[in-house]
Amino acid sequence: MNEAYQYPLLIKQLLLTPLAHKTRAEIVYGERRFTYPELRDRIGRLGSALSRLGVGIGDTVAVMDVDSNRYLECYFAVPMLGAALQTVNIRLSPDQVLYCLNHAAPKVLICNVAFLPLFEAVRDKLTSVKRVIWICESGPVPDDPRTAGEYEASLANADPEHAFLDFDENTRATIFYTTGTTGLPKGVTFTHRQLVLHTLAEVIATRLTANDVYMPLTPMFHVHAWGFPYSATMLGCTQIYPGQYVPAKLVELLRNERVTFTHCVPTVLQMVLGAPGADAPFDGLRMVIGGSALPRALCDAALERGIDIYGGYGMSETCPVLTCSRAISELAAGTADEAITRMKAGQPLPLVEMRVMDGDFRDVPHDGVTQGEVVARAPWLTATYHENPEATRALWENGYLHTQDIGVIHPDGSLQITDRLKDVIKTGGEWISSLELESIIGRHAGVAEVAVIGVPDSKWGERPAAIVVARPEASVDASHVRDMVRQAAEAGVVPKYAVPERVHFVEALPKTSVGKIDKKRMRVLFTAETGEVDVAITSFRA
Amino acid sequence: MNEAYQYPLLIKQLLLTPLAHKTRAEIVYGERRFTYPELRDRIGRLGSALSRLGVGIGDTVAVMDVDSNRYLECYFAVPMLGAALQTVNIRLSPDQVLYCLNHAAPKVLICNVAFLPLFEAVRDKLTSVKRVIWICESGPVPDDPRTAGEYEASLANADPEHAFLDFDENTRATIFYTTGTTGLPKGVTFTHRQLVLHTLAEVIATRLTANDVYMPLTPMFHVHAWGFPYSATMLGCTQIYPGQYVPAKLVELLRNERVTFTHCVPTVLQMVLGAPGADAPFDGLRMVIGGSALPRALCDAALERGIDIYGGYGMSETCPVLTCSRAISELAAGTADEAITRMKAGQPLPLVEMRVMDGDFRDVPHDGVTQGEVVARAPWLTATYHENPEATRALWENGYLHTQDIGVIHPDGSLQITDRLKDVIKTGGEWISSLELESIIGRHAGVAEVAVIGVPDSKWGERPAAIVVARPEASVDASHVRDMVRQAAEAGVVPKYAVPERVHFVEALPKTSVGKIDKKRMRVLFTAETGEVDVAITSFRA
Repeated sequence: MNEAYQYPLLIKQLLLTPLAHKTRAEIVYGERRFTYPELRDRIGRLGSALSRLGVGIGDTVAVMDVDSNRYLECYFAVPMLGAALQTVNIRLSPDQVLYCLNHAAPKVLICNVAFLPLFEAVRDKLTSVKRVIWICESGPVPDDPRTAGEYEASLANADPEHAFLDFDENTRATIFYTTGTTGLPKGVTFTHRQLVLHTLAEVIATRLTANDVYMPLTPMFHVHAWGFPYSATMLGCTQIYPGQYVPAKLVELLRNERVTFTHCVPTVLQMVLGAPGADAPFDGLRMVIGGSALPRALCDAALERGIDIYGGYGMSETCPVLTCSRAISELAAGTADEAITRMKAGQPLPLVEMRVMDGDFRDVPHDGVTQGEVVARAPWLTATYHENPEATRALWENGYLHTQDIGVIHPDGSLQITDRLKDVIKTGGEWISSLELESIIGRHAGVAEVAVIGVPDSKWGERPAAIVVARPEASVDASHVRDMVRQAAEAGVVPKYAVPERVHFVEALPKTSVGKIDKKRMRVLFTAETGEVDVAITSFRA
Repeated sequence: MNEAYQYPLLIKQLLLTPLAHKTRAEIVYGERRFTYPELRDRIGRLGSALSRLGVGIGDTVAVMDVDSNRYLECYFAVPMLGAALQTVNIRLSPDQVLYCLNHAAPKVLICNVAFLPLFEAVRDKLTSVKRVIWICESGPVPDDPRTAGEYEASLANADPEHAFLDFDENTRATIFYTTGTTGLPKGVTFTHRQLVLHTLAEVIATRLTANDVYMPLTPMFHVHAWGFPYSATMLGCTQIYPGQYVPAKLVELLRNERVTFTHCVPTVLQMVLGAPGADAPFDGLRMVIGGSALPRALCDAALERGIDIYGGYGMSETCPVLTCSRAISELAAGTADEAITRMKAGQPLPLVEMRVMDGDFRDVPHDGVTQGEVVARAPWLTATYHENPEATRALWENGYLHTQDIGVIHPDGSLQITDRLKDVIKTGGEWISSLELESIIGRHAGVAEVAVIGVPDSKWGERPAAIVVARPEASVDASHVRDMVRQAAEAGVVPKYAVPERVHFVEALPKTSVGKIDKKRMRVLFTAETGEVDVAITSFRA
């Protein structure tokens, strides 16, 4: 073989750097600490064990685990065999989990016994799964006809030198399901090439370095934990995997392991900051916030605790990162409010072409005011929804990926998401951002949480309705809420017709399985209501 | 078109980020300062002008210019047309330039009138060049049948909105010739995909950021100025182009433009530090040093001037960067000597697979001692020498690119280059590093410069010979030189048989056109000599 090596972009090559750099960094899960050579050894063993079960190019292996070193091993070993890693959202209902498993059709399932009840709920209807590898931190291996063995025992018996061969970089590496929009869950897939390129660009945009200590606070089943386990591995960072998200334990890990880099949605940040032991500062901790807009008060609370914050933007279909802001500590110019606005927005990663388009698919002016839909091209966007050509066509209309997010581009080039296409309130021919109304109403001292949705209106098309959680013992009523918006309208921040006639007080806002506010559900719940009512809702968590 | 955009990795996409980020950074050349939108406008115009001359996919356009904003425009516009940019080494002899031009066969030449004498020397023998665009900063456009126009006038008449279409990412983007080894110059080519991936990895390894002010000190005709013009453009850095390298002017630019990032070979660093005005510190300046080993005294002189130094390693065939060290300021642990050793070496960039192999193509132990040949795989290594299958086969023996460099890997994973395969002295069945002997001899206070070469010996195969430049008014003779090596041998640093019988004193060491010490020429000059002689050589510069 005396000709040039045709180098395919494969996930296995992300392991080259930490091994060559002989880093002393470790992969940490509970009491267990593994060096990178040990990680590589275990990936070899897992590849060997799966290979013996017949897993190869084109197959799928599903994983149901907490955030652990084993999940990281699956992130590598499964794609390195040429198979697709299916990361199963274990917070979905059994019916949804069953749908996702049967639709992706994994041959093997790697399942933590913590999710045995979920497995048992779907077991008899699984159409593709032939073998199950059980993760048992303690206790017996479940007695099931499909049981192939226990995870650690399987690795102990396998070959650490398993040879991972080269194959086409466009081979599918991952698949997971998004439930964020209407209809059945949709399967989103990514190739080796896409994940390698996403990793390189993400490292550049976030300035993650080998000196960082990384811990995810976005579950590993959720869009590759935003890609950071791949990025941290390529750099050879120490990585802390927190298992199940128990707030007090997360705080303890952040402190004891001196974590410097993490990422989460605002809801998780709130959970962490409210946990026992979270009062003292977290010095040197940087955090990427994404998933939804960061409320000002929560941002202030994080900054007070010494946490430096970046904004990030993306979605399941985009691997996920499209934009990232500078850290808030770098955005010192201007007022704190301005810094937070810029922080929320962020600018495109290298190689990302991002545009904001009006209803006729023309670029909106980059004036920070004119809203449009965010569309994108990048080398890491999902090419198709798995076996769903109709949804794929809508996703890629005009050759650009349609995010269904509404945003503006500021004169400094930063993007600000103003709403979801389906959440923006279309009233009297104009668009009102539900997020902007939420921000205004949320400034009332008596308001703990608020969501604004559009409800059908025969005259205006839609009208805004505010769903409010009051603070305990606060005295706040609908007129206070309307006054907040009326004052903002008088100041010219929103149009006068943004003042909501309807204000509903609830005990908690409905949330999706990943902790996002579930406006779809609210629209169902509140569309039938009329006038000003108080609705008592104890919990909406799925 | 309602299907996924197939995103090819093309050089044009490196322009997405600076334009989207609306950076206020500038491209500076002399009195002229261009914003990134102006750069993009000029790239469009240049593409339009070249397109009108018939340049398209598969063609080649050669450039002979000093380091300027125009050269940067050519770095983009030519490849963005699907044509290959030929960067001509204007320091070669007219015969070599003619060979390179006729071998690469450019259709169009873009030539600075500063190089008119060189053009006139080869004009009548150019077999492919149909049209010449002249760069005239002042004076008339040369009257030549091939003249197509003047550069600025051509741009003024062209279309800034020229549409650069997509094409295969494996399209050739650049070609240049390497004269570093024996025989005729060899053409080295790189594709769009290779250059984009090199850019991403280089930014990660060097931690270049958008806040940096960049200036090359490696000529733009030389291996894409190590790729940094692409990296700095992708990030949207301010970029300073220095024109011809006039030492006092370089110092002035480094200071006045507050340059934070540059790169050069040790010879250029020496030239800069010896220039008028170079005594005061260069605060905040980071510098990648490559091309040859950095002498300790020169390193100390740079550090004293406040310059932070990184080591880099690569070659023309590798785009060029394969390894990069941390900055010397980060390598604080241990003694200064240890820091410098680590700094010289460096670790592989992301996606680089680098191995050091013994004579039987087995990995040497990573003990920092055992030498072998450095071989590599990466997504940006030249696949072929242009129309030279024999050299290509030797380059890619066993499916790895053979650097012909001898090195060791330290226990911490860092590479140290100990010699060139052809420079290492093979004596009595052992290898002695010529660079190590040079380092030892160079520590003598009376030695200004030294090169050690292997000369044929009937008994031992080869024996080392030292070629020495003494400091003015220094009193140093051959016995002092031998004593330095003898002491090192007694300390166990080198074997006893490393003491050179032959020591030649010269006025200057032969250098190649890019300022490297020319051992090939020395072997020719000194192989015929015997015994201990003083040879007066005024200058070897090509």
